[in-house]
Amino acid sequence: MLGLTSATNAEWVAAVLADPARVLVDHAHCEKKAATMAISLINRYPERRELVEAMALLAQEEMEHFASVTQKIYERGYKLKHDAGDKYVQALHTLIRTNEPDRLIDTLLVSSIVEARSCERFQLLAQHIAEEDLRQFYSSLVESEAQHRTLFVRLARTYADRRTVDARLEELNVLEGNIIESLRGEPAMHG
Amino acid sequence: MLGLTSATNAEWVAAVLADPARVLVDHAHCEKKAATMAISLINRYPERRELVEAMALLAQEEMEHFASVTQKIYERGYKLKHDAGDKYVQALHTLIRTNEPDRLIDTLLVSSIVEARSCERFQLLAQHIAEEDLRQFYSSLVESEAQHRTLFVRLARTYADRRTVDARLEELNVLEGNIIESLRGEPAMHG
Repeated sequence: MLGLTSATNAEWVAAVLADPARVLVDHAHCEKKAATMAISLINRYPERRELVEAMALLAQEEMEHFASVTQKIYERGYKLKHDAGDKYVQALHTLIRTNEPDRLIDTLLVSSIVEARSCERFQLLAQHIAEEDLRQFYSSLVESEAQHRTLFVRLARTYADRRTVDARLEELNVLEGNIIESLRGEPAMHG
Repeated sequence: MLGLTSATNAEWVAAVLADPARVLVDHAHCEKKAATMAISLINRYPERRELVEAMALLAQEEMEHFASVTQKIYERGYKLKHDAGDKYVQALHTLIRTNEPDRLIDTLLVSSIVEARSCERFQLLAQHIAEEDLRQFYSSLVESEAQHRTLFVRLARTYADRRTVDARLEELNVLEGNIIESLRGEPAMHG
């Protein structure tokens, strides 16, 4: 349903169960970077009204999630540390074509895929994490990530014809599957 | 009350009254950049909990204001254009010392001064703009800018002793007064 071509493996689940603190810290930075990405789309395409309106709301929602994740971190006596970076998202960004409007379409589709992968992984965390409060927390995020995925695909279809968008999304999903399989099960949202 | 050493002159009021569209567009970008600044403080000082919590909320609020300003732009048939930049804020940022903790303190105090100046100018807009809806809109922002000013000063006092902070704020307010007087009444929030 999420369009992903490769399911997350048991190695990742084992890695995150072994280090829930590191997953929370990485997750907080993911939410913050999603807000930053939304703002950078406004900077790059200020004249595209649907995009600007959607990204203004999305940035607020991502920072609200950031605030929720940091509370989970503080409640448990963990600390927010510096962002360790996200090799997965960096690898996906190298797939974005540089000419317009391809750059816009690819940026939106890559964002939709990151939301889809996050959604899949929140589902896994909601199933496997021992702590009930965190299970509920991750579960509460599944729907919003799925909605963000749909939002980005819908925006891409606003700015290019549907067949072109859907064909490119299929290509990118295959490439994303290769990237996610190349990663070594780090205890990070996209590890 | 806002600590400013130089009042905005009539030249600025005349310039903004002559071009309300440009002021709205510039204002939208100011709100967006304030959110970006809040996120960059989280990136730079993730271990400072009070700061992280305050900036997570502030980024949401600034993007909410951005969304409100862009609605005012669209309702009037204006367009959001690319950010023309903000020489005033750029000049203020050159005053930030580079060693820590001075860098953090100065960043917070410069932010407090930008909020104070914005607050003063929203008051002027609320008094002078012809359109009732915009008068009310600017008026509604005055209080939140004043609260943000106080927030930044309070945060600075969390990370350095009060006397040091207050003395530096006084210095920076004098320098800000020189900067604002050097500007030539552009139809921009900090023009």
